Amino acid sequence: MSILRNNSVMAALLDAHLEALSGEEALPPERIIAAVAQGRMALLGNPAHAGLEPKLIGQPARVKVNANIGTSPLRNVPREEMRKLAAALEAGADTVMDLSIAGDLAGIRSAMLAACPRPLGTVPLYAVAQRYLDAGEDPAGFSAKEILEEIAFQAGQGVDFMTVHCGVTARAAAWAAEEGGRLLGIVSRGGSILARWMRSRGQENPFLTGYEQILDIARAHNVTLSLGDGLRPGAGADAGDAAQWEEVVTLGRLVRQGRAAGVQCMVEGPGHVPLHNVEAQIRGIKSACAGAPLYVLGPLVIDSCPGYDHIAGAIGGALAVRAGADFLCYLTPAEHLTLPDEADVRAGVMASRIAAQAGEVALGRERAGARETAMSTARRRLDWPAMQRAALDPAAVCARRAEHAEEEACAMCGEFCAVKMLRAEPPRP
Amino acid sequence: MSILRNNSVMAALLDAHLEALSGEEALPPERIIAAVAQGRMALLGNPAHAGLEPKLIGQPARVKVNANIGTSPLRNVPREEMRKLAAALEAGADTVMDLSIAGDLAGIRSAMLAACPRPLGTVPLYAVAQRYLDAGEDPAGFSAKEILEEIAFQAGQGVDFMTVHCGVTARAAAWAAEEGGRLLGIVSRGGSILARWMRSRGQENPFLTGYEQILDIARAHNVTLSLGDGLRPGAGADAGDAAQWEEVVTLGRLVRQGRAAGVQCMVEGPGHVPLHNVEAQIRGIKSACAGAPLYVLGPLVIDSCPGYDHIAGAIGGALAVRAGADFLCYLTPAEHLTLPDEADVRAGVMASRIAAQAGEVALGRERAGARETAMSTARRRLDWPAMQRAALDPAAVCARRAEHAEEEACAMCGEFCAVKMLRAEPPRP
Repeated sequence: MSILRNNSVMAALLDAHLEALSGEEALPPERIIAAVAQGRMALLGNPAHAGLEPKLIGQPARVKVNANIGTSPLRNVPREEMRKLAAALEAGADTVMDLSIAGDLAGIRSAMLAACPRPLGTVPLYAVAQRYLDAGEDPAGFSAKEILEEIAFQAGQGVDFMTVHCGVTARAAAWAAEEGGRLLGIVSRGGSILARWMRSRGQENPFLTGYEQILDIARAHNVTLSLGDGLRPGAGADAGDAAQWEEVVTLGRLVRQGRAAGVQCMVEGPGHVPLHNVEAQIRGIKSACAGAPLYVLGPLVIDSCPGYDHIAGAIGGALAVRAGADFLCYLTPAEHLTLPDEADVRAGVMASRIAAQAGEVALGRERAGARETAMSTARRRLDWPAMQRAALDPAAVCARRAEHAEEEACAMCGEFCAVKMLRAEPPRP
Repeated sequence: MSILRNNSVMAALLDAHLEALSGEEALPPERIIAAVAQGRMALLGNPAHAGLEPKLIGQPARVKVNANIGTSPLRNVPREEMRKLAAALEAGADTVMDLSIAGDLAGIRSAMLAACPRPLGTVPLYAVAQRYLDAGEDPAGFSAKEILEEIAFQAGQGVDFMTVHCGVTARAAAWAAEEGGRLLGIVSRGGSILARWMRSRGQENPFLTGYEQILDIARAHNVTLSLGDGLRPGAGADAGDAAQWEEVVTLGRLVRQGRAAGVQCMVEGPGHVPLHNVEAQIRGIKSACAGAPLYVLGPLVIDSCPGYDHIAGAIGGALAVRAGADFLCYLTPAEHLTLPDEADVRAGVMASRIAAQAGEVALGRERAGARETAMSTARRRLDWPAMQRAALDPAAVCARRAEHAEEEACAMCGEFCAVKMLRAEPPRP
């Protein structure tokens, strides 16, 4: 029970929200307490985040979906990001990450925290590197101290979870970058910045050497650390190589250290993984990381469908959930091409929710199964309002039905409807 | 070698196209001949279909994708269907099925055959039932003779493959419809019409009792029979029940009978199957059906995402391909709601192509892997034209890049690009 015992901020938060969380997750309070205490479930919530409804991440709690938003140097329009935040929440994202890398990052973050009643995550390294880029300097010019200051600043602002790439060891980063090794080197923005920093100084990763100080900040605010996979494969061919596993093994050790210090840790996972390797990857990472909540990006089962990465990611995500992943980071149709717009955000959230539902049905989760039964029962009755209620996106049903809403059957079959065909009265046009 | 020996029409077609097919599939001619002779690969092509390029279906030939189009009683606009045909071909559909159920079906079919250089499939039962519906009569009022006449007529028109629901036995149809059995009864249009026909007359399925005559027609024109799964599950909960397996077992026997008669047979598969059952279903059906090419509809791993069935279908399709499915029928975002439009057709074809590619990569298929390698290599070089060439949909890459086409990195990361970050020179805005 080390985490709860050593983290009074989290203990108080859990106490205040336990009844609501128990209802929301349809799990007995004792089960939640035990899982949170062991670190197999994380309670996302920084008390400084006003208006927040904390969320539990870690099966058998419902699998959660995260939407990444944020400005980019080539499209830096904060009000668009605020609209994307609203779109993500409306589409059913459980958490949002502000990955802004251009503009007034502290101001954008503060506005998002105010507008987001669900946990908000960030990657503090971006803010540190951006200052150097904006000044026309090398983005890896920052000091270890600046990292800690930024993490503390954002924790004070109310950020609920932060990606910290503590597991990118100098050895693993060198392996990932070496000639004749990976097809695609390092593809994580954070991982590549740290690799640059370590290479230019010949020093170990400052997030790793400063891990104890990071833990102190995180514990004080109940910031959940999302131990980033800076060396995740960036091509299917690179999945499961030495650099990736070196980082995973390191993250597993950091999870144990974090738990002992009373800090909640999640582990971030791939990335780009071919279909036949998804289960092995997920089970391997969960084992190596002592069952910490696993937060995956996709995984993308193919690399050859830019413009449709939300679909490739949904395939991998569904398999990942079945194998034990707890938290899906969405991919949008814009991935690998450009900054997503509002429609992309909605498409990405829906694709991830579909993946989560498919995986949960396969796992026999009761509420996921009940939704399926409700839909099939409504279909047997041609009961369109009930279909809408059972649908992951009721609005999509409504929009598609609009033209023929008065018909009993759908406009694909009309009187050829198989359901109507077996009634005693023959169907009539 | 019974099929080739007993089907001179097909033997001549194979002879004429073997070299081209061998190149297209990157398979040695002997391997194609052996697979086609055994019935594990089908050569789709009716010599009466002018301008046709025949296609091989059956792994290790490339997994093929079919697009369903056609009029509906509530949206009967033949010129729209012709535009959808063009969209399907442009998006990369390997075959198209004309499932029209309203209007001048023979005329629409004839126009589609003329405009479609790839195999065209139909469901002859629809034309038979439609005549009765249009006359205000019971759609199951037709005679067994009318079915054979319609099949012969369409074979003469040049239809390359036809869905015939020969495996819907009276016993299985009764099981599927009985109280307290399935959640969703019979959902195949053909299956439900035949169930109605059998129930009202107390007779066995006319496609089954007339199978020998159907074989005679099919052999004369090298029409590939797509043995329809009229009792496929219509809800995840119904997958794998007695009615489904009774039909599968029947289809397996019909495959052997067809092969002995020199007729090419494919088997149609589900449908609605939860994620954890997809592999078992696919391997089970392939075994029971003597390795005949398997043509699946999805499978949809969840029922609760109307408006996004192409995504749920892509998840199931990828797993199905890995487990041995040979041919994917697309699902569009319109499925279960309305008739698809052109954009839906494109989205459906792309989702199925993604599923096929994901499954083929998992199977280690060489050309699928080469596409992935080409994409990852292009990404390492930030070589956008090469990425476009490697993409399943080059136009999507182009469209998304349009706004920032002059930039080396993508508009998501700009100078935060991980690839640029590890070059010696620091990235600059």
